Amino acid sequence: MKVKYNLIKKEKDTMARLGTLETNYGIVETPMFMPVGTRATVKMLTPEELKDAQAGVILANTYHLWLRPGEDLIEKAGGLHKFMNYDGPILTDSGGFQVFSLADPKDITEEGVHFKSHIDGAKLFLTPEKSIEIQNKLDSDIAMSFDECPPFPVTHEYMQKSVERTLRWAKRGKDVHKNDNQSLFGIVQGGEFPDLRKWSAIETAKLDFDGYSIGGTSVGEDKETMLKMIEYATLYMPEDKVRYLMGVGEPLDIIEGVIRGVDIFDCVLPTRIARHGNAFTRHGKINLKNAKYREDFTCIDDMCDCYTCKNYTKAYIRHLITVDESLGGRLLSIHNIRFLIKLTEEIREAIKEDRLLEYREEFLKTYPAFKK
Amino acid sequence: MKVKYNLIKKEKDTMARLGTLETNYGIVETPMFMPVGTRATVKMLTPEELKDAQAGVILANTYHLWLRPGEDLIEKAGGLHKFMNYDGPILTDSGGFQVFSLADPKDITEEGVHFKSHIDGAKLFLTPEKSIEIQNKLDSDIAMSFDECPPFPVTHEYMQKSVERTLRWAKRGKDVHKNDNQSLFGIVQGGEFPDLRKWSAIETAKLDFDGYSIGGTSVGEDKETMLKMIEYATLYMPEDKVRYLMGVGEPLDIIEGVIRGVDIFDCVLPTRIARHGNAFTRHGKINLKNAKYREDFTCIDDMCDCYTCKNYTKAYIRHLITVDESLGGRLLSIHNIRFLIKLTEEIREAIKEDRLLEYREEFLKTYPAFKK
Repeated sequence: MKVKYNLIKKEKDTMARLGTLETNYGIVETPMFMPVGTRATVKMLTPEELKDAQAGVILANTYHLWLRPGEDLIEKAGGLHKFMNYDGPILTDSGGFQVFSLADPKDITEEGVHFKSHIDGAKLFLTPEKSIEIQNKLDSDIAMSFDECPPFPVTHEYMQKSVERTLRWAKRGKDVHKNDNQSLFGIVQGGEFPDLRKWSAIETAKLDFDGYSIGGTSVGEDKETMLKMIEYATLYMPEDKVRYLMGVGEPLDIIEGVIRGVDIFDCVLPTRIARHGNAFTRHGKINLKNAKYREDFTCIDDMCDCYTCKNYTKAYIRHLITVDESLGGRLLSIHNIRFLIKLTEEIREAIKEDRLLEYREEFLKTYPAFKK
Repeated sequence: MKVKYNLIKKEKDTMARLGTLETNYGIVETPMFMPVGTRATVKMLTPEELKDAQAGVILANTYHLWLRPGEDLIEKAGGLHKFMNYDGPILTDSGGFQVFSLADPKDITEEGVHFKSHIDGAKLFLTPEKSIEIQNKLDSDIAMSFDECPPFPVTHEYMQKSVERTLRWAKRGKDVHKNDNQSLFGIVQGGEFPDLRKWSAIETAKLDFDGYSIGGTSVGEDKETMLKMIEYATLYMPEDKVRYLMGVGEPLDIIEGVIRGVDIFDCVLPTRIARHGNAFTRHGKINLKNAKYREDFTCIDDMCDCYTCKNYTKAYIRHLITVDESLGGRLLSIHNIRFLIKLTEEIREAIKEDRLLEYREEFLKTYPAFKK
């Protein structure tokens, strides 16, 4: 089936939305956070641990799976769900983001993008059609359109041409997408230009996708610009479709994104920082390598209900990280993923009670605000 | 409490014993295999995964924990069980094996062993008394005597002096061991010399330990010598105490050890080979990196009941290992540990039915025999 978004409630004082998303693998609630399973595995974790953290949809990366083990192998395995033993909904990205980071600007053509494999330098060519074809074979529940990911900053003229190309690519991808069991999302681009975000949102919606995402917001360091880009886009995105902000997962970004009408987030942050010994807490990120946790026999976050916080002390996790035992990164990954998912659960409760702005204030009492 | 060994049955045609061991954390059946948790973690796995694999006792390394995080910290945490969240029996080794591998022969004295830390080169000194003191603080259920671990091969004269010293050290350790909740095991040495193994077994038993282990058998490559060393020792070890063969965990070694009267085994092998992509099977070890598993959508071992074999294919695990995703090593660790534990379960069944030699023949029909 195609995903179906049900808008349950709009918050009174913000653009926040409470909703559900019907998928091939059950109904998930939004706003929600998607853990990232780059290479058909959310790093260090089993599917059971993701379910235990109340994960809904997870994300896998088309570029990485295209290279290894290859979409044909995954198709032979019976699709990504069966291959990785995950019986929940899976979204695949288009590969565009990785490919653009590897390509020389002169190798970006109207037809597609020429670039070299990050593994062996082999010359590769990815097009909107090829991206869809790969995602079809992966058999994810949600596929993404192949979009141009422009650098930041660029001129208005450059961005306009880029948005035009992304629209042409979106249409080309949609034309070859023939899988009734897989949804296809369009991507709104337009950088920091309000008129282009608006135009991109409206024109992408005309192509009638099953959902829409917002791209290109996490390229700069400037949080205010990022939040404006989101707002410019969501203002003109269809109300009856789900909205996905790509690559964003800082706790405050999630809260601010929801306030501006976003329903879905994804980010490698919780697992990446975990492998370096970092944990989210209500008081900001902490690094367990810090000597002050040496004899700290309390859990990471006493408001957390995750497996790690129920069973392990900071002192033990610090020991594991210090001696380079991978269980440390695993325990922190479990915690960090649950932290963001629990955050979205609390956000949903706050929307129900029309107190999301209060929730943000409450959260900011202990969590450090964005640096200006 | 001190561990209590109950001999349930001796096999008719071999020296194999079926028994139980009563511990602070319940009763475990022998023969059994102990997974190794060097640094207060069985690499990559949680306590729940060990329980799921039906692990009884696990082993932790005194040397490593002495250095990091230190026995005082673990004592403050409430002991090793609480520190690492493991509510099953734990055995600690004496640190001797690691220390002798780091020490210069001239730095081995009657008082103890001078050596340099493998972490920062700091000068350290370990004595029989210090080893017991550390293990007391770790609060394991079973502590090991600090023994001299001689190289291989050595002369009869050298070995005799070494056994004499190990006996003096065993007595010194026992004299300072005052923990009624912790058992203390003596170690039988004597290398490849039947008279010294016999003498070591008899004299160590006179010191009246709670159990006995056999050391120094895994130093050479020659399997026949190893098996003889075991036999020379077990022939003279007390029947009413449990017998532990240190550092041995190859499937065939376990079967041969049981045939010679051993009750407990430990080895880093299952987790170490897992991290390099290897799995135990009934047809010997296989390496999942092998290209022939690329499209093999069957589990590692269809006779295995572990989490990995119930849920994942060789093709998927091969993919994880190939792209260096740690879930691969984790899934293989779960399988390999369960493989050895299941092997001991089957051995126990075979002893019950007086058919251990048949079981060995059956096992060898598919599993490659020792290379001569």
